[in-house]
Amino acid sequence: MNSPKDPEPKADKAGVRRHNLSLVLRTVHEAGETTRAAVAARVGLTRAAVSSLVEQLLERGLLVESGKTFSGQAGRPGTVLKPAPTGPAGLGVELNVDYVSVCVADLTGADRVRRTLALDNRALAPVEVLRRAAAVTAEVLAEAARQDLRPTGVRLALPGLVSGGTVHQAPNLGWNRVDADALFARALVAARPAGAPALPVASDNEANVAALAELWFGHLGDLGDQGGVRSFLHVTGEIGVGGAIVLDGELLRGAHGFAGEIGHVTVVPDGPRCRCGSSGCLERYAGQTALLRSAGARDVDGLVRRARDREPRALAALDEAGRMLGVALAGAVNLLDPQAVVLGGIYPRLMAWLAPAADAELARRVVSGLWAPAKGRLRAASSTADAARGAAALVLRDVLADPLTYGG
Amino acid sequence: MNSPKDPEPKADKAGVRRHNLSLVLRTVHEAGETTRAAVAARVGLTRAAVSSLVEQLLERGLLVESGKTFSGQAGRPGTVLKPAPTGPAGLGVELNVDYVSVCVADLTGADRVRRTLALDNRALAPVEVLRRAAAVTAEVLAEAARQDLRPTGVRLALPGLVSGGTVHQAPNLGWNRVDADALFARALVAARPAGAPALPVASDNEANVAALAELWFGHLGDLGDQGGVRSFLHVTGEIGVGGAIVLDGELLRGAHGFAGEIGHVTVVPDGPRCRCGSSGCLERYAGQTALLRSAGARDVDGLVRRARDREPRALAALDEAGRMLGVALAGAVNLLDPQAVVLGGIYPRLMAWLAPAADAELARRVVSGLWAPAKGRLRAASSTADAARGAAALVLRDVLADPLTYGG
Repeated sequence: MNSPKDPEPKADKAGVRRHNLSLVLRTVHEAGETTRAAVAARVGLTRAAVSSLVEQLLERGLLVESGKTFSGQAGRPGTVLKPAPTGPAGLGVELNVDYVSVCVADLTGADRVRRTLALDNRALAPVEVLRRAAAVTAEVLAEAARQDLRPTGVRLALPGLVSGGTVHQAPNLGWNRVDADALFARALVAARPAGAPALPVASDNEANVAALAELWFGHLGDLGDQGGVRSFLHVTGEIGVGGAIVLDGELLRGAHGFAGEIGHVTVVPDGPRCRCGSSGCLERYAGQTALLRSAGARDVDGLVRRARDREPRALAALDEAGRMLGVALAGAVNLLDPQAVVLGGIYPRLMAWLAPAADAELARRVVSGLWAPAKGRLRAASSTADAARGAAALVLRDVLADPLTYGG
Repeated sequence: MNSPKDPEPKADKAGVRRHNLSLVLRTVHEAGETTRAAVAARVGLTRAAVSSLVEQLLERGLLVESGKTFSGQAGRPGTVLKPAPTGPAGLGVELNVDYVSVCVADLTGADRVRRTLALDNRALAPVEVLRRAAAVTAEVLAEAARQDLRPTGVRLALPGLVSGGTVHQAPNLGWNRVDADALFARALVAARPAGAPALPVASDNEANVAALAELWFGHLGDLGDQGGVRSFLHVTGEIGVGGAIVLDGELLRGAHGFAGEIGHVTVVPDGPRCRCGSSGCLERYAGQTALLRSAGARDVDGLVRRARDREPRALAALDEAGRMLGVALAGAVNLLDPQAVVLGGIYPRLMAWLAPAADAELARRVVSGLWAPAKGRLRAASSTADAARGAAALVLRDVLADPLTYGG
């Protein structure tokens, strides 16, 4: 049998079987609930072939049958098939500047176990940050096991330039060349009971993962002319400002994996110095640290309180941040012409004060003139779509692409 | 028989034949010179099938045989096949602010007939500009006919927001909602001898077409790790500043067809007003009008002369334009992470003075730190790759995609 990791699987029997198992599993996953007959009609295989593939997926614990029958559009009623609510799962770890969030999602994408820990990660060495994140992850894995959820891997989401398992640069964490995959994997083995199987670990950029979470779990479906929004810019306000670009439902990763860095787009060439070495970056105006400082607030709760009380300094700070956000977003919209811009992280709570100034800049600066405020293309991210859940779903995407990697 | 314009051709006999004719024609086109045996090996059809398809393409005048034989890698020597050097052709019209350039390219992409006319298009009504462009086009068509070249269509390249045959906005031409396709087609019929067959006309954004020309006819092959540069940002300095984004060999058109507008990216939020209604656009610093004004030069020749003479005002103007270009390009590189940035239009002649300041901004402002000047990712566009030739090649791409649209 071919190894599941074979980079160029030959179209032999084992390869065809693997491909068809994935096709059937993804079809059920997309439908949520369906029948063998509906799957066969959808994928263009015979009913007998689909039944055999479904049997294998049931045996491996990737699908379940519910007792009820279902009369769909494709012929006779049949037993309902669903993705397994226990068993295969993904584990996502969002490691941000001031917190760690760990999530286990089941095969349907539902958020099943969650722990979030406030932590000033800038005050700690990278090894220590990863050690603490691994300790929370071990707790989450123990809880997942109690719920009969078995993650097949761990995805880390980090606010920095990540490729090949290394965080090359994360200015707001103060990290340079940190081998996050290897360090976290080692710490996780140490944090778990002796004999627990090692899980594969892979790192990704936090903003990229948050954008995919919005695509998969957000509420973009009500926008766009047909089939919802599939091309958008996603901007996350945290201590820094992260960004990601989704085009036709796929992440734009760029030639070196570093696309989407809107936080370090210059908005004022002679503006204040940024941690990245440049000056006048968007982050220096619209990042959390800059915003709280100019508003004179201690935290985002305090900022919201002051804005509600119409305190002039807070309102001026939010207006200025919104204006600079609008300038940078207008540049990105001029370049990319996306269907929408989605604001995540701390921004959804601040939309009432940020959006008017940002919308005004977009209306004035986007040359196509299609971005007038009335069009409402500037959207708050969905509260159900965060980076930890997106990271967990990325692990599950691997299972959906090749079901033979799970169980058996 | 199906109409060639059938939007969803069924996979019937006629559809398969059309597909295979295109496959064989594109294979010969890509190779430049090849044999039937080599084509058969490449496309995976039998020798007999390829010979039959080649006969049809020879009959229709899309391929020619040369007398010589050719011993390639795929078996016995055979008669050499080439794309026809006469017959099928494309006609491109670049309609810029201060000139009109008309080009006929043959099926190999070679520039065969060319007329360029200096014209202050801002001083004329759109109808009059299109009438004059049509008059030059009629002359070019007459010369093409003398060389036995028969364009199958006309592609207009215009410096503005173009979709569905309409120029929605071209700030530097002063155009708003001009039905360029229809007006040009009518003017061309009027300018040609009675009874000349009408040619289909389609408009496109000039910067998009110039970027495709660079991809197809430029010298990007020597860059990139493998297979040359396929993802790049293309910026054209004209009266305004145009831009286009190519990702994996395909143009990023955006949700409404308006992607790539780097000329109207803000570099200084409170900078001077722009014709587009915004302020501090890149164009106001690095467009030809702005650059000549701040250098005190009448035209680009004069600017080059003054820069060579090291005249302080000219050098300062070029340095400032390079700096602002660098700021805007750094933003685009942070968003897109392309393999290269290509500067076209007036910029190649000015690289010696623009590039140092632009490179310094890129090195400082691109957060991934991969854009140090030594990397040389900022490149001058190829002199052989202009928008008129790119537009002509776009017409030929339609012939290559469906050879049955030509002759017969």
